[in-house]
Amino acid sequence: MGKEKILLSHGSGGKLMHNLIDTLFLKELGNEISRKKNDSAVINIGNKKIAFTTDSYVVNPIFFPGGDIGSLAIHGTVNDLAVCGARPLYISLGMIIEEGLDMDILKRITASIKAASKRSGIKVVTGDMKVVEKGSCDKIFINSSGIGELYYRGLSTDNIKAGDAIIINGGIGEHAISVLSKREGIRFSSAVKSDSAPLSALITKILKASGKVRLMRDPTRGGVATTLNEIVKDGKFGVSIDEKSIPVKRGVREACELLGFDPLYLACEGRVLIVVAKEDAKKVVNVMKKDALGRDARIIGRIIKEHKARVCLNTSLGGRRIVDMLSGEQLPRIC
Amino acid sequence: MGKEKILLSHGSGGKLMHNLIDTLFLKELGNEISRKKNDSAVINIGNKKIAFTTDSYVVNPIFFPGGDIGSLAIHGTVNDLAVCGARPLYISLGMIIEEGLDMDILKRITASIKAASKRSGIKVVTGDMKVVEKGSCDKIFINSSGIGELYYRGLSTDNIKAGDAIIINGGIGEHAISVLSKREGIRFSSAVKSDSAPLSALITKILKASGKVRLMRDPTRGGVATTLNEIVKDGKFGVSIDEKSIPVKRGVREACELLGFDPLYLACEGRVLIVVAKEDAKKVVNVMKKDALGRDARIIGRIIKEHKARVCLNTSLGGRRIVDMLSGEQLPRIC
Repeated sequence: MGKEKILLSHGSGGKLMHNLIDTLFLKELGNEISRKKNDSAVINIGNKKIAFTTDSYVVNPIFFPGGDIGSLAIHGTVNDLAVCGARPLYISLGMIIEEGLDMDILKRITASIKAASKRSGIKVVTGDMKVVEKGSCDKIFINSSGIGELYYRGLSTDNIKAGDAIIINGGIGEHAISVLSKREGIRFSSAVKSDSAPLSALITKILKASGKVRLMRDPTRGGVATTLNEIVKDGKFGVSIDEKSIPVKRGVREACELLGFDPLYLACEGRVLIVVAKEDAKKVVNVMKKDALGRDARIIGRIIKEHKARVCLNTSLGGRRIVDMLSGEQLPRIC
Repeated sequence: MGKEKILLSHGSGGKLMHNLIDTLFLKELGNEISRKKNDSAVINIGNKKIAFTTDSYVVNPIFFPGGDIGSLAIHGTVNDLAVCGARPLYISLGMIIEEGLDMDILKRITASIKAASKRSGIKVVTGDMKVVEKGSCDKIFINSSGIGELYYRGLSTDNIKAGDAIIINGGIGEHAISVLSKREGIRFSSAVKSDSAPLSALITKILKASGKVRLMRDPTRGGVATTLNEIVKDGKFGVSIDEKSIPVKRGVREACELLGFDPLYLACEGRVLIVVAKEDAKKVVNVMKKDALGRDARIIGRIIKEHKARVCLNTSLGGRRIVDMLSGEQLPRIC
């Protein structure tokens, strides 16, 4: 047997990645903060609670319908802060650029970062730039690390109760299909634009409307299926979702049929899954519908006592199947 | 004339990089925090002042005498916090890994990160991992972003006065020569180990010993020459340094003679330049000498009224020359 190697699937957001995080990174570097495995680390600074998060973006191509690597780097980090109940405040940018990149491309990306950070209300306060020889990276990679102030405490898987509703703010898989179609030069009858967007304002409205939000997560790598599996991973509850209530746009559906993808595993970059007490679910959906980023909001399922640690899909055809965490690589370099 | 392109020298820490930062990044994204251009951004969180910094590491090779990309990523970010008068608290890691990397290499790097963060007293609280296809990056790149709490306020170029002493804690250029010799397979009669080290404990001792420290900087990319130029860039003062007082180890001197490098432009990763009131200089040097990382501490020059915005070197031969900021690329992928 050969030496163990890092595979593309180690970066896919699925099982192999979770396994590597648990058995290497958390085992060696873990502490009481990182072991919570939230989208952001929550740390104490004086009398404040701060959310701190990092993400590197390697999306290919760097420009795609609905966004680019610059806006994606801002939105992604803003959303990781927002779903933890934090107000995004400050962001850092670490760029790794391939020698020979057109200056105009860097200017376009910078303009996009400017617009996205303005829209998100986050300030770029520090940065770093490295240039590597041609062939040592692919055009440009951007790391963004963000700091936010927690204004809503107690979002945690510990708060989940059987009967809680699961809400999403819009169609799934649009980011992944937009990147893929641009990368592969595939056209669908209905064009798909990335859903990449900053969710902080929408989330503030949600948290104002209900004091009974248990948890929020943005279903990026690994998609809705993987994120829901993560939510019930500790084994106290299961998830039941209804296929016919999950919004999938025509272009996404068409692309999935053509290419053999399951939309439930496709990355979103402007979607949030909200677990909220049943009695507040309709109120939350109504509040969301008034926001441009929540217009398609709907309840897609609920937390159940049965099928612990599993996600069950009630199919449109009346069947039922278990939806596992992503195993293997569906689409590399989607973010 | 062709389109303007990003060059390796844009990432060298010298003139071209400063120009790009000023004319693109700060112009488009700048604010009252980022425009200070310190090693860390200083931000207010509640009643505390926090330092926040980011750096991406692309060093080639990833293992070199005296360190590796993992320890370098911890030390570099710890030092950027420490020179701002902050106690390093929390760090994030964003890894970009090339498909096919040996798992054993990732394990060695993780072990090195563990040891370095323990030694530095900083906690790894959050992380991210992306994997790109073979050929789309070179083995592994690591971004580290750090948060520290300011315990010493007022370090700023604004505080500099004519007559202030400039101190360094040890020999220059050892990091650059160690990486270069490993990369190119060159051996010198006297082996050179990287000086990469966490300076936070040493710096705390310095700031305890003197309330008259004006400013500190770690001379990484661009070396001592570029860092001193940055310090007097605003044009109120000049710098005078004495060649014979600047510690350069035999192996570094030999490598520079052989390869035509000037040690003043070589990156250090465990060195700090301290600008302190003349009357406290000896006291600070004595305190430093008691610490393993300051054993070779010495005064190498002073702030002067003349030669505003310039760095003057009094050569060993009795001459005098202006030492400019690095222009062009001396050594790519040194950190």
